[in-house]
Amino acid sequence: MISENEVIRMLQNRFPVKSKFIKKGIGDDAAVITTKNAGEYWLVTTDMLVENIDFRCDWTTPRQLGRKAISVNLSDLAAMGARPRYFTVALGLTSGISRRWIAEFYRGLTEQGGKHEALLIGGDLSSSESGIIISVTAVGESLGRKVLYRSGGREGDALYVTGILGRSAAGLRLLSGGCKQPSTRSQRLALQSHRQPDPRCAAGLWLAQSGMIRCMMDLSDGLSVDLPRLCAASGVGAEIDVARLPLFTDAASWNLNPVALALHGGEDFELLFAVPDSKAARLERTYPLDLQPITRIGRLVRGKGNIWIHRDGKNHRQLKERGFDHFRRNACKNQHSCANDP
Amino acid sequence: MISENEVIRMLQNRFPVKSKFIKKGIGDDAAVITTKNAGEYWLVTTDMLVENIDFRCDWTTPRQLGRKAISVNLSDLAAMGARPRYFTVALGLTSGISRRWIAEFYRGLTEQGGKHEALLIGGDLSSSESGIIISVTAVGESLGRKVLYRSGGREGDALYVTGILGRSAAGLRLLSGGCKQPSTRSQRLALQSHRQPDPRCAAGLWLAQSGMIRCMMDLSDGLSVDLPRLCAASGVGAEIDVARLPLFTDAASWNLNPVALALHGGEDFELLFAVPDSKAARLERTYPLDLQPITRIGRLVRGKGNIWIHRDGKNHRQLKERGFDHFRRNACKNQHSCANDP
Repeated sequence: MISENEVIRMLQNRFPVKSKFIKKGIGDDAAVITTKNAGEYWLVTTDMLVENIDFRCDWTTPRQLGRKAISVNLSDLAAMGARPRYFTVALGLTSGISRRWIAEFYRGLTEQGGKHEALLIGGDLSSSESGIIISVTAVGESLGRKVLYRSGGREGDALYVTGILGRSAAGLRLLSGGCKQPSTRSQRLALQSHRQPDPRCAAGLWLAQSGMIRCMMDLSDGLSVDLPRLCAASGVGAEIDVARLPLFTDAASWNLNPVALALHGGEDFELLFAVPDSKAARLERTYPLDLQPITRIGRLVRGKGNIWIHRDGKNHRQLKERGFDHFRRNACKNQHSCANDP
Repeated sequence: MISENEVIRMLQNRFPVKSKFIKKGIGDDAAVITTKNAGEYWLVTTDMLVENIDFRCDWTTPRQLGRKAISVNLSDLAAMGARPRYFTVALGLTSGISRRWIAEFYRGLTEQGGKHEALLIGGDLSSSESGIIISVTAVGESLGRKVLYRSGGREGDALYVTGILGRSAAGLRLLSGGCKQPSTRSQRLALQSHRQPDPRCAAGLWLAQSGMIRCMMDLSDGLSVDLPRLCAASGVGAEIDVARLPLFTDAASWNLNPVALALHGGEDFELLFAVPDSKAARLERTYPLDLQPITRIGRLVRGKGNIWIHRDGKNHRQLKERGFDHFRRNACKNQHSCANDP
């Protein structure tokens, strides 16, 4: 089966797009376009969620689903350091869907959009024979042309993430194990991360404006899938120090491996970014306390595309890609099965 | 089953969007947004095509499907009088789809986009369990803030359409009757209209720039569905003179009723617009000969939402909505069954 990365490479090679108004086309978290006299860039990103591939209706309420559908897109804008502005939603609905379901879905969509100042401006409705389909396109705006790409990272840069890694995947494991109602605070956190992730818009904006960051992306498919993408775009490799990973340690008490979840679990929607080593101390000193905490997890190294796992200060091992490729058959199943094997 | 119109009304009532930067939100062919200092508006429109609802893979090549997927969106921009600029595509693909299929689909998409100066800037890939899903979002730009809405029509305005009506529906009937390879020029035209409609971008742009047009939309679901939408937005009724309809008369020789096809057949992607009666003569005198011909088919009248059919200068009959509601179950079947009953 062809992978999402292969399709993107095929598109970049076979249908290259050249225009002085396109600062970035296919291959980053969002496209970046500009106009003649505008001081800002416009950013456009789109994501499709398919029932039973990307979500299950018995694991989420329509309101939660609406919140998540817009969040996935807002996270792409956050990853570029852009401010969300507008969004559209194309919906394919199965017959027999209730008015209430539709209203609740749009309620979630618009309240989460509104929280991040993104307004619903249009959409399309279609029917679907076998499952709900949601396709959101979000439009954002840069502040003063300061946009962060996946490219731009250099050998020696310090590698950071926001938040905790693997918590959403832990939530998914709870759901697939039959736990829909949380009984502890950790379970509630895990389920919320999975069902209603909150995009790191404020952190992304601050990081882009800080002028210290070299490159950035969001973690939607898992570190083991997304970090190689950042490395490929920047022409470097990376080294991750397992001891530094901001783990969701509570997962260990559910018989899950927090390291595996952090490396391969998808849908954390945290930010991954690189900073010149010389600016790392200043970044940590000035990064606002009210934003999602940041953690230094490793560094960029020579050797395009090679990702090394560093554990206990000695043994190195190359990281295998086992995160979530939405486009690969059984990706969902893979994600489940890998979660206990770091 | 709830209809697309009902959902749009629900959204407009329950989640109204107010912003000085949104000139038009939900409920027209495209959303219209503006920025602080820009001389132009940006327009955004999105459409979803679902396999076996909106298309069948055995009736179209992937290249034709790609062309159609972008055309549907470009037609929405044409309907506002905007110039296409960019587009994204989110794709849900079933397992086992070939590299060749994907490449051919993108070839159709980018060549048709390129013809109308719309560039592919991004997208998303997902897997789908039971059918291909295509969701395109197109971004356009107005020329000097001249944009045409569905609203703005007034009692007494002359009503026009571009091109021929019912030809795409005739093509669909040929396909559903088993005719995939055309044997006559008429069949070729009908199949091409259905498989590869060409959006009326140049005509839309000219009409918007002419300053003569009061309101406009594209005919995607059929005159009997779309005209009531234009009338509702403009707060008027309409009268159609059957004798004036630009029919696809060749369909009569295939045992189809050209009038029924023109009234209820969807996917013509022609433009429907209204002009003050006093400007109709000037419009017809100045409209460029190299654009899709225009035909006066009736007028706007008092009585919001009432659509009258006028035949042989005497008998009036109210038009029933029998076109294509993509969101209604069995809409596809309805479209077939109605085509012989005007």
